[in-house]
Amino acid sequence: MTVRFVVLGCGRIGSMHAEYLHRRVAGAEVVGVFDVHAVAAETVGAELGVAVAPTLEDALAIDADAVAICTSTDTHVDVMVAAAEAGRAIFCEKPISLDAAEVDRGLAAVEAAGVPLHIGFNRRFDPSHKAVADAVAHGAIGAIEVLNITSRDPAPPPIAYIEVSGGIFNDMAIHDFDMARYVTGSEVESVYALGRVRVDPAIGEAGDVDTAVIVLTHENGCLTTIDISRRAAYGYDQRVEAFGSEGMAASTNHHDFNAVLATDQGYRQPPLQNFFLERYTASYLDQWAAFVDAVEHGTPTPISGLDGRAPLVIGMAAKRSMDEGRPVHVSEIT
Amino acid sequence: MTVRFVVLGCGRIGSMHAEYLHRRVAGAEVVGVFDVHAVAAETVGAELGVAVAPTLEDALAIDADAVAICTSTDTHVDVMVAAAEAGRAIFCEKPISLDAAEVDRGLAAVEAAGVPLHIGFNRRFDPSHKAVADAVAHGAIGAIEVLNITSRDPAPPPIAYIEVSGGIFNDMAIHDFDMARYVTGSEVESVYALGRVRVDPAIGEAGDVDTAVIVLTHENGCLTTIDISRRAAYGYDQRVEAFGSEGMAASTNHHDFNAVLATDQGYRQPPLQNFFLERYTASYLDQWAAFVDAVEHGTPTPISGLDGRAPLVIGMAAKRSMDEGRPVHVSEIT
Amino acid sequence: MTVRFVVLGCGRIGSMHAEYLHRRVAGAEVVGVFDVHAVAAETVGAELGVAVAPTLEDALAIDADAVAICTSTDTHVDVMVAAAEAGRAIFCEKPISLDAAEVDRGLAAVEAAGVPLHIGFNRRFDPSHKAVADAVAHGAIGAIEVLNITSRDPAPPPIAYIEVSGGIFNDMAIHDFDMARYVTGSEVESVYALGRVRVDPAIGEAGDVDTAVIVLTHENGCLTTIDISRRAAYGYDQRVEAFGSEGMAASTNHHDFNAVLATDQGYRQPPLQNFFLERYTASYLDQWAAFVDAVEHGTPTPISGLDGRAPLVIGMAAKRSMDEGRPVHVSEIT
Amino acid sequence: MTVRFVVLGCGRIGSMHAEYLHRRVAGAEVVGVFDVHAVAAETVGAELGVAVAPTLEDALAIDADAVAICTSTDTHVDVMVAAAEAGRAIFCEKPISLDAAEVDRGLAAVEAAGVPLHIGFNRRFDPSHKAVADAVAHGAIGAIEVLNITSRDPAPPPIAYIEVSGGIFNDMAIHDFDMARYVTGSEVESVYALGRVRVDPAIGEAGDVDTAVIVLTHENGCLTTIDISRRAAYGYDQRVEAFGSEGMAASTNHHDFNAVLATDQGYRQPPLQNFFLERYTASYLDQWAAFVDAVEHGTPTPISGLDGRAPLVIGMAAKRSMDEGRPVHVSEIT
Repeated sequence: MTVRFVVLGCGRIGSMHAEYLHRRVAGAEVVGVFDVHAVAAETVGAELGVAVAPTLEDALAIDADAVAICTSTDTHVDVMVAAAEAGRAIFCEKPISLDAAEVDRGLAAVEAAGVPLHIGFNRRFDPSHKAVADAVAHGAIGAIEVLNITSRDPAPPPIAYIEVSGGIFNDMAIHDFDMARYVTGSEVESVYALGRVRVDPAIGEAGDVDTAVIVLTHENGCLTTIDISRRAAYGYDQRVEAFGSEGMAASTNHHDFNAVLATDQGYRQPPLQNFFLERYTASYLDQWAAFVDAVEHGTPTPISGLDGRAPLVIGMAAKRSMDEGRPVHVSEIT
Repeated sequence: MTVRFVVLGCGRIGSMHAEYLHRRVAGAEVVGVFDVHAVAAETVGAELGVAVAPTLEDALAIDADAVAICTSTDTHVDVMVAAAEAGRAIFCEKPISLDAAEVDRGLAAVEAAGVPLHIGFNRRFDPSHKAVADAVAHGAIGAIEVLNITSRDPAPPPIAYIEVSGGIFNDMAIHDFDMARYVTGSEVESVYALGRVRVDPAIGEAGDVDTAVIVLTHENGCLTTIDISRRAAYGYDQRVEAFGSEGMAASTNHHDFNAVLATDQGYRQPPLQNFFLERYTASYLDQWAAFVDAVEHGTPTPISGLDGRAPLVIGMAAKRSMDEGRPVHVSEIT
Repeated sequence: MTVRFVVLGCGRIGSMHAEYLHRRVAGAEVVGVFDVHAVAAETVGAELGVAVAPTLEDALAIDADAVAICTSTDTHVDVMVAAAEAGRAIFCEKPISLDAAEVDRGLAAVEAAGVPLHIGFNRRFDPSHKAVADAVAHGAIGAIEVLNITSRDPAPPPIAYIEVSGGIFNDMAIHDFDMARYVTGSEVESVYALGRVRVDPAIGEAGDVDTAVIVLTHENGCLTTIDISRRAAYGYDQRVEAFGSEGMAASTNHHDFNAVLATDQGYRQPPLQNFFLERYTASYLDQWAAFVDAVEHGTPTPISGLDGRAPLVIGMAAKRSMDEGRPVHVSEIT
Repeated sequence: MTVRFVVLGCGRIGSMHAEYLHRRVAGAEVVGVFDVHAVAAETVGAELGVAVAPTLEDALAIDADAVAICTSTDTHVDVMVAAAEAGRAIFCEKPISLDAAEVDRGLAAVEAAGVPLHIGFNRRFDPSHKAVADAVAHGAIGAIEVLNITSRDPAPPPIAYIEVSGGIFNDMAIHDFDMARYVTGSEVESVYALGRVRVDPAIGEAGDVDTAVIVLTHENGCLTTIDISRRAAYGYDQRVEAFGSEGMAASTNHHDFNAVLATDQGYRQPPLQNFFLERYTASYLDQWAAFVDAVEHGTPTPISGLDGRAPLVIGMAAKRSMDEGRPVHVSEIT
């Protein structure tokens, strides 16, 4: 069986997903694409030789098994509801929405329709981070006690993006909140967050911060620290370190290449891979393989709608913590 | 412009090349495939949705710009001559042939036809090895004095393959001889080789060795050591280290993933990537990009026919050295 | 000139200092030792062949230039006052005291006497941590934005020690608070701390925690995270990572030896050096060299009395933060 | 029991040994020193507070248990014979002599006297190299098949030293020949060596080379490659890599410190520890502990006189191989 996809949204991430699904994922093919910007959809459609739907309705009318929702965040829930009603298995990029009530509306529609739903927290499929999670799950480090996550983008996005991003906690740290739940296997109880504007004053003027440190407490007693920044001169820095009663498991980064130059100035290695398209290629492909497998076999998707909701609540708590200068319990967020 | 390829030979390496050319190389597409085993060609043809030629003549009659010669080594030269006469730009897998006279026949046909020719020593395009070669070429380590190459396959091929391989020097070490010429930028003068049967007595019974150490002298005074083995329990081990008057440049391996587990037993990292399809993916893609660019712009291919011939002569000298227990000058090989 | 020392306190750290001063520090010699446990002093005195003072008064009557105060923490200030009145240059182990008023009494006596004082935050002299601090100070990473400190002992001390230790923040994290001031070059403003009992319930019964995460804010805007534990199965884990506008500087650990074993199970390195006597040997020697140099030349000691006081206040703020579940400003600590 | 040493020869290595024996080796003390240059002996004697013997005869008349022979190589055998006749346990720096007959004369005297003898191939006691040898001995890599040794000094010695050194093979590579016997646990059968003058023409004018590659065959079938140089811009490079049927064990170097600086220029680590006094401190101390233990308990010394002789023969074979351009069997060396 081949799972036939319609890709909704053909921006940077949508066009990447379309290409991967059509060319590099066994058991999958793209049968149509859509974007509110017609030229974006036409470019991808021409590249892959697949149908271009002029409207969302047309896109959902294409005979297909699944959709990949890669539209702008504010449209995710409307698209999700429509796709659910059309009976499609749904892959939705993160975050589902920046509004918890909207998330609930989307999840209710999915549940009513009884269609599979997977939220695109791809980092769970990064082989290095996954090795850390597996080590914890298999008891290789005993009981987990502390989790440290470092997450630094190479450079900030345009201010126009910052302005609609929902803020650093729900745009960027949301991946790390998901990672914390994934690696510890435990829900978050409370959040303490500190933020700073260090990279670009314009980010501050847009009401956001660009540098932050967050501490989470988990139900199982684990403490998680997260440090995030919109800038890292040396490349995309993505590390997870789990510390437990019997040891430590940690993922490290990938350099541009694996070579060293040694002179009287010391040993030099290249910078890190620049950004997520390079670093997380394997995660995107493995995520698709897992989703396609779940759809094909009718088994649960790896990352559920509730997995998509929880990090949003943590992000809201982080924002409130930073604003009010105190730790915030997630139960304070309705 | 899109360079249209016919892929000749659809075994393991040919089917990989076909997929890469058709799906992952910008400016290239596959318009036909051929294999003496029809089922192999049909499988690849169906996967890519391209024409399957029943004979080599049919394959060369397809309207195309270039061929990728991935047939068995003993047929390379006949196919090369036919492709040259058909006016195709030629990519040929290594080695061109195990017979120097045959190589010369092929190169003569290519020269007569005036078509581009590139020999598939893909490791030159590995970003890590390339960084070493670039460091040498740019003077970052001063004048090169010593080059150490380690090249260990994870496990030996079937004995049936060993029997027609041409021996470890021209089947396996030929990549390393090319690497020595590439990194040092200097021709080889003499060869001293020692071989052992340590992995499988059946390899010895087939007249070959499975473990070898080779020392090369270069025209520029550099000394190269090569150690090769048909077996490495910890994965595919491919390293190059250049030592010069002002420093050292070295490429290292890729592990299965980049994570560590630390316990009271120490720190553990995963084994190396298992074999060349994983380790050298980037090199294959970058090689294709370079070849397609050369064909498109009419510029010289990166690895010429003479670059394909030289390692074969070094391999023959290595074999003679091992057999006679003495260093052999390459000029002794006619 | 040789700086003549009397070593006061001959426990684990005092006997180490005595041996280093007498045998491995150029320009220093030990001329006497003292300990309230006579046998401890006699053992060291016999080993080094130096005078053993029966009382503190006798020890301070020995003709000497300096003292090394290595007695139990609760006696530091009394000894410091007596040594200051005796006109000795003073090296005092950390912490000066667990009571800020006591610290002030000691510092006042030192100031009144006009003698040099150095507090033994040896980690500043660890060549790896020092390289991080130097990188920050020299602008190699631009403006510092985030500092991450990991500090994990291999195993907890006896409960009897825990009971008089002053708690994990002032016993163990005090080194990390000093490191935060040292690397950032900026005073701490506020502290948020979370603690857990994960290693041994008896530590909790003694009123302490064994696992903690701390976040500091600095006057210069830097945010520091610290994670500490009384247990690390893989050895003594001591790392500092400074992240700034132009890069990152990080110190790493030392393994028991520098070798790797690679098999089909992966690559294995040995555990980390077990504890501070091994890891910080160079720091102790370099610290002595710096103190001896300051005494000999009448220049300021590298780590002043105020440098000894500040981390104590941070530790008190951390304790209060943990107890009250809120961030605490250091100005709240009188 | 304390083993009382007289140190014979107070140059760079002798004064280091004297200090270690007197101050840092449990169960050992220095009771006298001697050097043909009186001032050298007096300096060390004053530093340690021990007797200075005006002549060798006086030195051997001092009541002692053992001698450390650290005089110039050409005097080793005469001193060894005298020390043996005086009944002293003997530690002798490498090489015993540059003349095999002289070596035999020394060993005969030792055997006649029945005194313990240990040859100072300290690298066997380097914890990292030892881990490789132990891995081989314990079967952790299966049967050893290939051994690669890299041995590069940071900078060449004075030409005056080169002129009396006995040549690069017996001065420098002799350590590596010993390492090859130690790690493989197998005698060397044949040697192939190539040498070049790349560092300093004056070395060539002195009749020596400064860069060399050597291949050894062993009785157990193992092949060893050695590359040595008198110059390495990035520090003292000392690595051993053993490859076997079930894996690989390798020792690596020590950097000046363990820290990294990451910027847009990449990751930078410091150069390697500059030379043997830093790199091999642990090996010298552990070697002394082992020798003292053997003397105290009357057990065999770890490195025998025959272990001192074998590398000399290999070095002679290497020289002949280089001169004659052919592999040389060690049995050709009388």
